[in-house]
Amino acid sequence: MRIAVDVMGGDHAPEQILAGALEAAPESDGEILLVGCPDAIRRTSRDPFPKNVRVVEATQVIQMCDPPVEALRRKKDSSLVVAANLVRNGEADAMISAGNTGAVAAAAHILWKCLPPISRPGIATVMPALNGRFVLIDSGATPDCTPKHLVEFAVMGSVYAQTVLGVKEPRLGLLNIGTEEAKGNALTKQTYKLLKASLPNFAGNVEGKNIFDGEFDVVVCDGFAGNVVLKTSQGMAELMKTMMSGILPKNRVLRALIGPVLRRGWNEFMKRTDYAEYGGAPLLGVNGLCFICHGHSNAKAIRNAIRMARRGHEARLNDRISKWAAEVHGEPVSAS
Amino acid sequence: MRIAVDVMGGDHAPEQILAGALEAAPESDGEILLVGCPDAIRRTSRDPFPKNVRVVEATQVIQMCDPPVEALRRKKDSSLVVAANLVRNGEADAMISAGNTGAVAAAAHILWKCLPPISRPGIATVMPALNGRFVLIDSGATPDCTPKHLVEFAVMGSVYAQTVLGVKEPRLGLLNIGTEEAKGNALTKQTYKLLKASLPNFAGNVEGKNIFDGEFDVVVCDGFAGNVVLKTSQGMAELMKTMMSGILPKNRVLRALIGPVLRRGWNEFMKRTDYAEYGGAPLLGVNGLCFICHGHSNAKAIRNAIRMARRGHEARLNDRISKWAAEVHGEPVSAS
Repeated sequence: MRIAVDVMGGDHAPEQILAGALEAAPESDGEILLVGCPDAIRRTSRDPFPKNVRVVEATQVIQMCDPPVEALRRKKDSSLVVAANLVRNGEADAMISAGNTGAVAAAAHILWKCLPPISRPGIATVMPALNGRFVLIDSGATPDCTPKHLVEFAVMGSVYAQTVLGVKEPRLGLLNIGTEEAKGNALTKQTYKLLKASLPNFAGNVEGKNIFDGEFDVVVCDGFAGNVVLKTSQGMAELMKTMMSGILPKNRVLRALIGPVLRRGWNEFMKRTDYAEYGGAPLLGVNGLCFICHGHSNAKAIRNAIRMARRGHEARLNDRISKWAAEVHGEPVSAS
Repeated sequence: MRIAVDVMGGDHAPEQILAGALEAAPESDGEILLVGCPDAIRRTSRDPFPKNVRVVEATQVIQMCDPPVEALRRKKDSSLVVAANLVRNGEADAMISAGNTGAVAAAAHILWKCLPPISRPGIATVMPALNGRFVLIDSGATPDCTPKHLVEFAVMGSVYAQTVLGVKEPRLGLLNIGTEEAKGNALTKQTYKLLKASLPNFAGNVEGKNIFDGEFDVVVCDGFAGNVVLKTSQGMAELMKTMMSGILPKNRVLRALIGPVLRRGWNEFMKRTDYAEYGGAPLLGVNGLCFICHGHSNAKAIRNAIRMARRGHEARLNDRISKWAAEVHGEPVSAS
């Protein structure tokens, strides 16, 4: 398999991106394509590359602040567009970028189109839970959704949990504002009925306060609500950290004893919620494998994203999504 | 002023509700109407009541598990319906209940109707922030909203922050999934334009991770997103508490030293986020004052809710909402 890595995207590009890609190379039996400016790449890493690493030239860079769709149009020779085109043209199987999230999602969606029969892409983010983790989908790609989109997200998230995270029978929950079937807004009420009728792993509604209980492996919602969940969790964690550190005792000895424990607890928590552990979030439902990494990504995050992409490719993630979604929609499975 | 208290609603009813109402009586110059079963009330409190406390009989009780609208129809002599009718008939100025939240909201909405020119009610919940607090509206009353509803919530939340919480010039934020004007779903994009054009205190979009920063006094959103924010925050806080307690050192002496500090930090945090501090959340936009208290409400929560109701009444909360909303809608102000 060949993985195109956007070496120029991210706050710590190209150094950390390059480092992560080079760390991943020895454990990869396929090829890693470093897409970016050859000069910048060479300045960063002077050692000869492993045999399965190759540079693909791109002269432009899409910045974090660039308006996504416009940037794709204006910067046709940017590392992101070149990487996306490698996948579109069959020269790579997956793309990884820690650049401008909106631009990465737009590049995959516009240049690759949706994966038939999926109608909208969704970002699958791994979140921490008691004794485990769960997949939140969509965490921001499609803010306006129909019930059909949510059913597709449910399929995509379930297949991702199975193939990449190794959850045999993922329990699926619908994010809602009550657990009873009749609760919710128009979208969730209709979606509930569709999920109940079509997905055997659907286990009912789940409220925001229970998503972290570890009872659900996949939580499905529209991209607006999902982004609200993701960012409210981050904000709440930050608020608690600040409040907890404000209650350290005045006594210096006690302070010296307790401070490190609090910090360790916090670090443990952050590790559990660390994007780098999962390498980034896949944009599912597009016609190719796309991993969107956090802007702050370090080498470890990139290496893990490459691992996830490999796992998704080996498990034929997209074929499985296509097949299950076609069954759910009652459409004939295309012979791809 | 006269405040109708649903003595039979809540997990700790009637004891804690009664205790809270009786604590509030001496500091109230108006009348407190205890709505419920006279026998149950007398069994709970045998001392003679203060002069400004009066029992209003109601023979039925709406249970926590009753389906809201059906319960209102079937239990016409329930403490909740009797209390709501006291307000409707002008025999009370406000209603307070810790009972079935859906039923309380439905009683106020159905029996009182909306406060002209408001078209949908919204629950205003006070949430903790760095160095303060903010009002989240709607936190669950109206899950499906139009931009007009959100503008009305913005007015209602701003007036509540001014009159009851004492924030002179409340900074208003629109909950969104990006800070730029063009970000969001169809609802927030349109709402942004309306808010910008009509509310001088509108300060832009705010993301979930920044609502706790203390930069906004009022955060407006539809009832689905608001409920997701509220409950995700609770779930995240619980998750962090569990994770932090899991990292206590094995050494018994250290454990004995650190445990209490962690607990104190947690309690401090819970106090900041404690519903009882604000006594409950007002259902705004209905034609009367309605405070929905948490099911777990203790005497303190009820006493504080009575205080909030008094403050709202004295500050003519609803008149101000009507006036501002009419101005925003460009409608003539009715001579009420």
